[in-house]
Amino acid sequence: MIVDTHVARFESIALESGAALSPVEVAYETYGSLNAAKSNAILILHAFSGDAHAAGVGRESGKPGWWDNMIGPGKAFDTEKYFMICSNVLGGCQGTTGPASINPATDAPYAMSFPVITIADMVRLQKMLIDSLGISKLLAVVGGSMGGMQALQWAASYPHMTRSVIPIATTARHSAQQIAFNEVARQSIMADPDWCGGDYYDKKPPARGLAIARMVGHITYMSDESMREKFGRRLREKEKFGFDFSVDFEVESYLRYRGTQFVGRFDANSYLYITKAEDYFDLTGGTGSLQSAFAATETRFLVISFTSDWLYPSYQSQEIVRVLRRRNLDVAYCDLESNYGHDAFLVDVAEQTDVLRGFLASTYKEKPILARV
Amino acid sequence: MIVDTHVARFESIALESGAALSPVEVAYETYGSLNAAKSNAILILHAFSGDAHAAGVGRESGKPGWWDNMIGPGKAFDTEKYFMICSNVLGGCQGTTGPASINPATDAPYAMSFPVITIADMVRLQKMLIDSLGISKLLAVVGGSMGGMQALQWAASYPHMTRSVIPIATTARHSAQQIAFNEVARQSIMADPDWCGGDYYDKKPPARGLAIARMVGHITYMSDESMREKFGRRLREKEKFGFDFSVDFEVESYLRYRGTQFVGRFDANSYLYITKAEDYFDLTGGTGSLQSAFAATETRFLVISFTSDWLYPSYQSQEIVRVLRRRNLDVAYCDLESNYGHDAFLVDVAEQTDVLRGFLASTYKEKPILARV
Repeated sequence: MIVDTHVARFESIALESGAALSPVEVAYETYGSLNAAKSNAILILHAFSGDAHAAGVGRESGKPGWWDNMIGPGKAFDTEKYFMICSNVLGGCQGTTGPASINPATDAPYAMSFPVITIADMVRLQKMLIDSLGISKLLAVVGGSMGGMQALQWAASYPHMTRSVIPIATTARHSAQQIAFNEVARQSIMADPDWCGGDYYDKKPPARGLAIARMVGHITYMSDESMREKFGRRLREKEKFGFDFSVDFEVESYLRYRGTQFVGRFDANSYLYITKAEDYFDLTGGTGSLQSAFAATETRFLVISFTSDWLYPSYQSQEIVRVLRRRNLDVAYCDLESNYGHDAFLVDVAEQTDVLRGFLASTYKEKPILARV
Repeated sequence: MIVDTHVARFESIALESGAALSPVEVAYETYGSLNAAKSNAILILHAFSGDAHAAGVGRESGKPGWWDNMIGPGKAFDTEKYFMICSNVLGGCQGTTGPASINPATDAPYAMSFPVITIADMVRLQKMLIDSLGISKLLAVVGGSMGGMQALQWAASYPHMTRSVIPIATTARHSAQQIAFNEVARQSIMADPDWCGGDYYDKKPPARGLAIARMVGHITYMSDESMREKFGRRLREKEKFGFDFSVDFEVESYLRYRGTQFVGRFDANSYLYITKAEDYFDLTGGTGSLQSAFAATETRFLVISFTSDWLYPSYQSQEIVRVLRRRNLDVAYCDLESNYGHDAFLVDVAEQTDVLRGFLASTYKEKPILARV
């Protein structure tokens, strides 16, 4: 399945901070067909470093989408039944307006003059896209990690626009530890002299700082156990005492490779803005209680976490589930057994597929969409 | 108790790599008095960033030692009963020969021409110090984290020179995840242009890189829970959207402060060499089995881990305990309940004190030291 990335353009978006962006563009892809009743649309929300290319093979890149193991004919998100939509987040660097975009007022990249964005702003832009596609109610919004935060934000911001919400391996608010890891990554980027206060677009990017930020990320995405299984203490082929602070262990070479590779596909300023959006995310609104966030919500929920995920630990999902249950909402929760840590939502697809397939089928069937007037 | 740091100087030390260092100096402190039988000496082994100043108040610095809550009259290590010794590790930067020391061959700091060192090399230098103090058998060797690795190495290298070994919050071999965190820290230092390939001693040090390395460290020393309790999501006093990538959350300001503060007291090249020594540490000798490491060991063991320590998780201590039990050695094991993560061995002293006091008393009493001839 060869897929194209589309771009939708809107005149302006009002942001939570009070600022506005004009114009704003959003890159998106779709898979499958929208039915006549427009009742089979599912919005996929990507994680921190993801993009609009969730499935199929990119026409130009030739690369599979980041959730291609989950989206397609006969897969968890069966494109023979459902119409899937995935867009790049606001502040991103894969086709949606972000710090690397040209500011029409200056004819130069926004860089650090880009306004603050929040998870709610990302969701507002997604809602504009869904409106423009003529869809008044989604069958589901679904995402893992930062995508899960967006899914929860959908339930809070647009409670009547979706029949179900599927937050995976996520949280309703970033914890001190999650903020701390993001802060290390930001410091690493900003400490790179090539960052130049964000004005590097006509020069070389802060490659080393960005690579180190990504290395930290990769450690947190894996589990202690999955790292042990994948790398153990295996040495690269060299003498133990051929010691020059080059690579000794396979895990080092893997992290350096992933870090360097990331530099080619991600913008350092987007890293700063998007991690800040994550850190600001707090559906309790600072009250410590999730009650009001979901006060108007009537959708079904499927909440998924993974046993070895220590970056977004299961207790954070369980906190969400408890609040939804207290409101007597229809909520299914699965803490799936996996060794893959946070990466599980991307790689451990067998059980996820079973759980998602059943949930989507029952949501699609049970309750025909009634327009709210 | 005002204490002085002493320096012992030896002509040369042969290293595991085959290289040698001449001369070599080791900074150490002692607390309490050695008894006539020289049977009450306990060697304290410090963790990664520690130093010889474990207890009392430094004469010049005016600062308390890093384990002052554990060492002193009536404390876990009761200086009215025991003679305590603590030395700075080889490769360190607090008085013991390390990369910042002057290489007599060049009259300039060793910097990156310093030879590779291992945990076994650190222990060899400690043994030279103990020999020079005229002590033929220690009552105990004890340390947490990297200090625990040294304690285990003592059991392997000099099995007849100590009556007991107390490894705390440690491992018999660094795991892929532990190596990975160290590698991120090293990359962060080496990415700082002020690092200059290690030749920064007559210029400014790689302060930003070293501070970021320390920030990563601090996250791993705390637990998710202790960070949540200490910082939560508390914002620094400023408007949420006074957004300029300066500090928003208290956890960010804490980490930056601790990172910056560290730069004043630690040498970046020591960071590189000592973390590599940790990463090379593998008492299985690459075989995956600890059997041979402890083949000649006859000492008693007290192994301590902490429930919320995810940097040196309890299973790593249990791996050690299983092997010692298989050899039918006298081993006590405590997995102490604590929320403080890896830092617990430094801050959560009440239960540790109980456990250590009893163990030391019974070791001291039960078996008078017999000289092995």
